[in-house]
Amino acid sequence: MTEKKVQFTVQELAQHIGGAVEGNGDLVIKAVASLESAGKDELSFLLDPRRCNELKTTQAGAVIVPKDHPPAQTTLICVDDVQAALSKVLELYSPADDLPAVGIHPSAVISDDADIAPTAAIGANVVIHNRVKIESSAIICDNVTIGSDVIIGAETIIYPGTVIFRRCKIGRDCRIGPNAVIGSVGFGYYFSDGKHNRIPHAGWVEIGDEVDIGANSCVDRAKFGPTRIGDGTKIDNLVQIAHNVQIGKGCIIVAQTGIAGSAKLKDGVMLGGQVGIRDNIVIGSAVQAAACSCIAQDVPDGAIVAGIPATDAVKWIRGAKIIPELDKLRTKVRQLEKRLGEIESSTNH
Amino acid sequence: MTEKKVQFTVQELAQHIGGAVEGNGDLVIKAVASLESAGKDELSFLLDPRRCNELKTTQAGAVIVPKDHPPAQTTLICVDDVQAALSKVLELYSPADDLPAVGIHPSAVISDDADIAPTAAIGANVVIHNRVKIESSAIICDNVTIGSDVIIGAETIIYPGTVIFRRCKIGRDCRIGPNAVIGSVGFGYYFSDGKHNRIPHAGWVEIGDEVDIGANSCVDRAKFGPTRIGDGTKIDNLVQIAHNVQIGKGCIIVAQTGIAGSAKLKDGVMLGGQVGIRDNIVIGSAVQAAACSCIAQDVPDGAIVAGIPATDAVKWIRGAKIIPELDKLRTKVRQLEKRLGEIESSTNH
Amino acid sequence: MTEKKVQFTVQELAQHIGGAVEGNGDLVIKAVASLESAGKDELSFLLDPRRCNELKTTQAGAVIVPKDHPPAQTTLICVDDVQAALSKVLELYSPADDLPAVGIHPSAVISDDADIAPTAAIGANVVIHNRVKIESSAIICDNVTIGSDVIIGAETIIYPGTVIFRRCKIGRDCRIGPNAVIGSVGFGYYFSDGKHNRIPHAGWVEIGDEVDIGANSCVDRAKFGPTRIGDGTKIDNLVQIAHNVQIGKGCIIVAQTGIAGSAKLKDGVMLGGQVGIRDNIVIGSAVQAAACSCIAQDVPDGAIVAGIPATDAVKWIRGAKIIPELDKLRTKVRQLEKRLGEIESSTNH
Repeated sequence: MTEKKVQFTVQELAQHIGGAVEGNGDLVIKAVASLESAGKDELSFLLDPRRCNELKTTQAGAVIVPKDHPPAQTTLICVDDVQAALSKVLELYSPADDLPAVGIHPSAVISDDADIAPTAAIGANVVIHNRVKIESSAIICDNVTIGSDVIIGAETIIYPGTVIFRRCKIGRDCRIGPNAVIGSVGFGYYFSDGKHNRIPHAGWVEIGDEVDIGANSCVDRAKFGPTRIGDGTKIDNLVQIAHNVQIGKGCIIVAQTGIAGSAKLKDGVMLGGQVGIRDNIVIGSAVQAAACSCIAQDVPDGAIVAGIPATDAVKWIRGAKIIPELDKLRTKVRQLEKRLGEIESSTNH
Repeated sequence: MTEKKVQFTVQELAQHIGGAVEGNGDLVIKAVASLESAGKDELSFLLDPRRCNELKTTQAGAVIVPKDHPPAQTTLICVDDVQAALSKVLELYSPADDLPAVGIHPSAVISDDADIAPTAAIGANVVIHNRVKIESSAIICDNVTIGSDVIIGAETIIYPGTVIFRRCKIGRDCRIGPNAVIGSVGFGYYFSDGKHNRIPHAGWVEIGDEVDIGANSCVDRAKFGPTRIGDGTKIDNLVQIAHNVQIGKGCIIVAQTGIAGSAKLKDGVMLGGQVGIRDNIVIGSAVQAAACSCIAQDVPDGAIVAGIPATDAVKWIRGAKIIPELDKLRTKVRQLEKRLGEIESSTNH
Repeated sequence: MTEKKVQFTVQELAQHIGGAVEGNGDLVIKAVASLESAGKDELSFLLDPRRCNELKTTQAGAVIVPKDHPPAQTTLICVDDVQAALSKVLELYSPADDLPAVGIHPSAVISDDADIAPTAAIGANVVIHNRVKIESSAIICDNVTIGSDVIIGAETIIYPGTVIFRRCKIGRDCRIGPNAVIGSVGFGYYFSDGKHNRIPHAGWVEIGDEVDIGANSCVDRAKFGPTRIGDGTKIDNLVQIAHNVQIGKGCIIVAQTGIAGSAKLKDGVMLGGQVGIRDNIVIGSAVQAAACSCIAQDVPDGAIVAGIPATDAVKWIRGAKIIPELDKLRTKVRQLEKRLGEIESSTNH
């Protein structure tokens, strides 16, 4: 009834990550932990050079370190790239993600004309509509709903509770959801006859390869043509992508950010959390925006912005720190005005 | 196995939208596209008069234009109202929305005493509790959960994954969800005995006719009586409406906006994205709030506001643009103070 | 077919809440309402002393009042603690929450090795994976998905559509969801070989006792070890809690707030709506942050903060109100500079 515990020796881990052991390779490692919290049967890692001193005090059984590491008391695994090595180790200690087994769960409701690869896995209570194509080794988790004419690329995982609407195309090796919504109708109305009339949305959503979209995030379908998200772009939880938005390749979009209709992000854009982007503007390639920025106009390639409205980040952050002093500043200006007036009247006479 | 492609001739489209053809009425149109991207078998439209010049360069097979249009090389459909005509055309090119067929899907779990109109459609894996009433031609999509004593009005669509709690009333011709939550318990506690104690919420949610509520949005039920959303109000994705909020008719509420408990919006309010509204305040009729505004006090009818805290939009936007210069402004004031001090000491002596 | 209406006499209500009747104890009360809206068969309450005058004008059949209440015309129920008494009354008038009956609904898909208490209730279309433990009197509502090795504590309710990933531990008497996501993969990547590479997340989420997490909120699992939420903490709708965040006991986190990776909140923190908290910072115990604050650095115990970036609340709010005047202030400084220059040149000569 209990979960099988995963464990490896230091030597086994070193082989897996291509590292060299300094110390006790026979030590058994049961989990990964930080330098300050790790215990005797746990592995830690030195990613931030400012924490070198903790190598002397850590209780970790072993530590992954870069090759040019400082002296340490504990067993070490020396590697070229600590971050990549840590990722490989975390994968070893990650249990399989409750993913459905290959094949179709008997409770799933699947249209007769769906085209599901024999190596795909379809979970419990999944609903799949007409002419859907699920490619090889794709995994559709429990309680997912997929509309007609959708294509799900090879090795992509759709997490539980996600809803994907008709005609959306999702690429290879993506992670979507849980409880995300892809291809819902965009928010478009026109005012006529004294009310807001719905504009039909004939478009769809096109998502490239290796795209991640987090929990409870929404990507609306376009009025016509595609709302598009480029290869390798990673989107966090609770993000809103409106109709007709065009997002380039390799972008990072942190939680609770919202991108309004027809905005365009070029490649490599990085948006902090809770950023807002106005409709119809263009964010240049490799732009970085600080959390909580509200971007209301085009941003040139490579700019680093912050603020409401967003502008040069250094200037805005420096200026915003003065807001709490504005009361004093205004008082001082009034006093200067008064003193100046006194001088003026005395010198005029 | 493939989706049936929709296509119409220019003449058929013109008849459908009540327009007059200038050019080749036999041309076959397969999709709608923008002026700059449309091809020979696509229809475009001239909505923004500033884009008149594109009529000369567009590759579109045909363009919907207003009757007072400038000269063009391409086939035209002339109409009174381009936006309304475009909406009708987009509807033609929109495939049916994966909607369940009339009747009850065999996988749905429905209480014996639910009252479901014979023309209603109930999708796969839907769960419907006691005494629910589903009116004529309403559509309940896959994986929806509906609590007891709920009423869903005629022709309303509840999109997949949405959860509606007990006693909520949803009007006619609404669109709710997907993955939205209506009538969940409000966020109310009182501190006593050293902890936050839950306040039960005996109320419900009442939604008028022709109301839209987007993906992953939440409307909490009231402590007592209804949380209320008026006829014709349109709410985007990821919006939070707290307990006891009262929203008037014909409001527009853009994505990621949050409205705190017992706030009141009168008719015709328009809120940009990511707006926050404090509890217990009143937003006057036809108020407009810019995206990212944080409204902390009552706003009079017709006001246009922006900022944190929100105030007159023109003043706030003008002022906020000066924030990045505050450092310089403060330095200048200090210099003035010093220079003034020097003058004062020289004139005093 | 119709919902049973709940009603009690004033005397019955007074007994239930331990109050003393002044007036007509036989009056029948059908609902709770506010002082200004209550009718003859409704009960109201006096929570805010500034509303004492409404006791003279209310049409309520009866009113719950504190023992030191002012004179009134209507029937009263006098109690020590109006808020606690009101909560007890609201509970009486709240219908049961569409909760599934004890036992396992036949449509649920449950792993053979799940350990479900005989007093637990499992709703329709629930999916429960391997080795899950559901403790006594816990309630798993319809369409919920629970991953392997999850523990759900006694008397906890998981509302419809919620997804809980593998290895998460949820305490006793919690309320989670609807459509919430607990234990989804954190948003962590490292850039290498020209792309963002996923960092596996081997951790989980640990939620204490009496914790509430609202509709469509997300709590990500840690890279290793737990993301942790302490006993008695209450989290509203659409909140984002990132990987490795540590939240103390008795915190209040209002809707649409986002807390970035590895941030730490000590006990009793209260965050208004739409607050953003930077990764890796520490928020001291009993800190209060105003709605829409963006907290970018550590906050000491007991501080009250507001603003972007957040700082002392009184100073920031006072300063932010001056932003709309910055244009005038800058103009005034320029004029002072000019006048001062004139004085300087006249005195220099």
